[in-house]
Amino acid sequence: MFLVRKHYLSGISIMYVTHLYCSSCNSHYAPRRLHNLCNCGKPLLVAYDLDRAATTLTQEALRDRSPTLWRYAEVLPVNDPAHCVTLGEGMTPLLKADRLGQSLGLQHLYIKDEAQNPTASFKARGMTVAVSMAKELGVKTLAVPSAGNAAGALTAYAAKAGLEVYIFMPQDTPKANIIECQQMGAHVTLVDGLITDCGKIVAERKAAEGWFDVSTLKEPYRVEGKKTMGYELAEQLGWELPDVILYPTGGGTGLIGMWKAFDEMERLGWIGSQRPRMISVQAAGCAPIAQAFESGLTTGVEIINARTIASGLRVPKAIGDFMMLAILRQSGGTAIAVTDEALLAGVKLIGATEGIFAAPEGGACIPAITHLIEQEKLDRDERIVLFNTGSGLKYLEAFSD
Amino acid sequence: MFLVRKHYLSGISIMYVTHLYCSSCNSHYAPRRLHNLCNCGKPLLVAYDLDRAATTLTQEALRDRSPTLWRYAEVLPVNDPAHCVTLGEGMTPLLKADRLGQSLGLQHLYIKDEAQNPTASFKARGMTVAVSMAKELGVKTLAVPSAGNAAGALTAYAAKAGLEVYIFMPQDTPKANIIECQQMGAHVTLVDGLITDCGKIVAERKAAEGWFDVSTLKEPYRVEGKKTMGYELAEQLGWELPDVILYPTGGGTGLIGMWKAFDEMERLGWIGSQRPRMISVQAAGCAPIAQAFESGLTTGVEIINARTIASGLRVPKAIGDFMMLAILRQSGGTAIAVTDEALLAGVKLIGATEGIFAAPEGGACIPAITHLIEQEKLDRDERIVLFNTGSGLKYLEAFSD
Ligand SMILES: Cc1ncc(COP(=O)(O)O)c(C=O)c1O
Ligand SMILES: Cc1ncc(COP(=O)(O)O)c(C=O)c1O
Ligand SMILES: [Zn+2]
Ligand SMILES: [Zn+2]
Repeated sequence: MFLVRKHYLSGISIMYVTHLYCSSCNSHYAPRRLHNLCNCGKPLLVAYDLDRAATTLTQEALRDRSPTLWRYAEVLPVNDPAHCVTLGEGMTPLLKADRLGQSLGLQHLYIKDEAQNPTASFKARGMTVAVSMAKELGVKTLAVPSAGNAAGALTAYAAKAGLEVYIFMPQDTPKANIIECQQMGAHVTLVDGLITDCGKIVAERKAAEGWFDVSTLKEPYRVEGKKTMGYELAEQLGWELPDVILYPTGGGTGLIGMWKAFDEMERLGWIGSQRPRMISVQAAGCAPIAQAFESGLTTGVEIINARTIASGLRVPKAIGDFMMLAILRQSGGTAIAVTDEALLAGVKLIGATEGIFAAPEGGACIPAITHLIEQEKLDRDERIVLFNTGSGLKYLEAFSD
Repeated sequence: MFLVRKHYLSGISIMYVTHLYCSSCNSHYAPRRLHNLCNCGKPLLVAYDLDRAATTLTQEALRDRSPTLWRYAEVLPVNDPAHCVTLGEGMTPLLKADRLGQSLGLQHLYIKDEAQNPTASFKARGMTVAVSMAKELGVKTLAVPSAGNAAGALTAYAAKAGLEVYIFMPQDTPKANIIECQQMGAHVTLVDGLITDCGKIVAERKAAEGWFDVSTLKEPYRVEGKKTMGYELAEQLGWELPDVILYPTGGGTGLIGMWKAFDEMERLGWIGSQRPRMISVQAAGCAPIAQAFESGLTTGVEIINARTIASGLRVPKAIGDFMMLAILRQSGGTAIAVTDEALLAGVKLIGATEGIFAAPEGGACIPAITHLIEQEKLDRDERIVLFNTGSGLKYLEAFSD
């Protein structure tokens, strides 16, 4: 039953997508078509017929499904299971972090270890869905600007699907990201600039080159894959949500996706109306969300000279910033910026107490927790989940001792 | 049900170990004690009361167990589930490799992707069990000679358990292995020599230092963790075994463990007496098993000046070589040595066709398959499983283009 190839609904159409809707102006778009942004320039999101989905997607049915994110197929956009391009992603362990909790003074701390995904980061979740949809909709060539991990994930799923990939990354992206893309056959271009500059190149060239642009939130399906982190959290906690979630935030699909999942699960009757306080963790050298949150703004201001060793957080301006800021406020959460020094110390503390060699982005959650404790914004007996979004193995340059 | 912390048998003693027995002279030893080698100098293995195990370990019961190797708890040596030191290891995906199969001319090729384990290699399987047992038996300090990945895995589980670790690795071990150990708090010593030299240092110093030696097969529980690869293969293939298994072999615990699992499963009534042909894949620069197999020897001769980029295969002399050679012959398998150039090309082919950035050791299976095809030792319609034992991310030095 765990053989990934044997999709449990093999051959049966399972698409419950009703339409796509704009996250800003609420315009509707037809499903089963290629889409990037809404005509208004904002991201599109996917709507499902959850009543129909609920007829087969039950907590009981999940017992017999494979431990990948495709267990939630009814709330994913792929129509024909034969189009699922899977490497076994999702259903990552949620580990009770007792020794780390003790050292921080917390009783119920958990780590969701996303490094155990294919390509060693949570980016696999978005790309398995995006590439499956691209395959379903007949795309042949994909392009993406990336801070690094999204590039590795896209390359992997595209290779599995036999699609061509063009990658644009800042030239100082960690070597591991560059090498994994090269070894799996992507066309890699290193850009003297930031991810926003890479994004501009893709935007300029895609029409002439015939590329489908898979940029964060400029394509509606990556966030569908990311939302499964929210479904898994609930399933792993016995259909309860934690009190607090700390998430390292760049483009924001993790936060936005989980929030969407909570809403869907409430409508499926699986959870109530309570929500975790969502905490966006950013790096001091590039903290547009933390700054906007602090200043009471509803969108971020582009960061000039963005710098941080946590390359996934080096996103000077995110197209979904308005959604993130709304979620943080609605949930009673906040956004916190931490220094590179503190996040690297966080990596070491997670490693020494929990045996997880975390990505710098994951390490950033530690000083964020310390900050929340100092501000008395965390109770010691709350259930707190921090996301380790990737593996330290992909950032060897960051660890020189 | 997937929360790793909530062990499904929490608090219930589940130990069905009857005794340990010598792999060579068949002497018996008491369970629940610290053991290294038999008095005769050969490895000890663990025996279970499989009749009792079968009362609760049923294929039906597995439905509700977490997707980690601890799902097979009745055939693992830990007594008290509270002692399980887990990071969510095992139940790695078995992926149908259709594009790779097509390029090799094979119809039913599968990849078991062990890179999706904690610490990104199959070594996690052995160390979760070894460290759990060490914890159960009151050990405080562990030491290991390692080619790299075992060190990372031991460090991780020891950190999780709060135990101290001393690591001895060749000085030219890939940087990723050294850094992961340092970041997770191990005492790391780099040795001007090979893993055998590292092993001598541990052997010399352990008594005075009070270290428990966790060397491959000098400790009886790592192989118990490794054997779960055999259980998973059967479960993932609907309680059938493949026709052929290709396994990159250094110390040999993977081969030996799986073979033991097949035997146990037959006695549990889960499979018949047929066995896959077991193929040991080695690097031309260090191929003691392939050479011994070829020469009709029952043990290996120590390799001088062992050299290969596939550092996990750089084991000049393995204490369990006599078991490996027996298994290869009994199964109708063979051993194959491949060049570094060919195994690196194998990594690229796996990457470009299947989206898995394999370890060089995993890549070595590709030229081995080609060789078997040329020799007409593989039928194109057989079910063939190759093991990608680790992640290419841990070998960046090997990939310089
Ligand atoms: C390891 C890691 N963590 C966090 C992030 C930020 O994720 P998002 O862009 O979805 O906010 C990234 C993005 O590249 C990443 O690679
Ligand atoms: C990636 C990898 N593959 C294969 C091996 C060989 O495994 P074994 O020593 O169990 O034969 C190792 C050992 O270090 C390894 O790290
Ligand atoms: Zn709009
Ligand atoms: Zn003996």
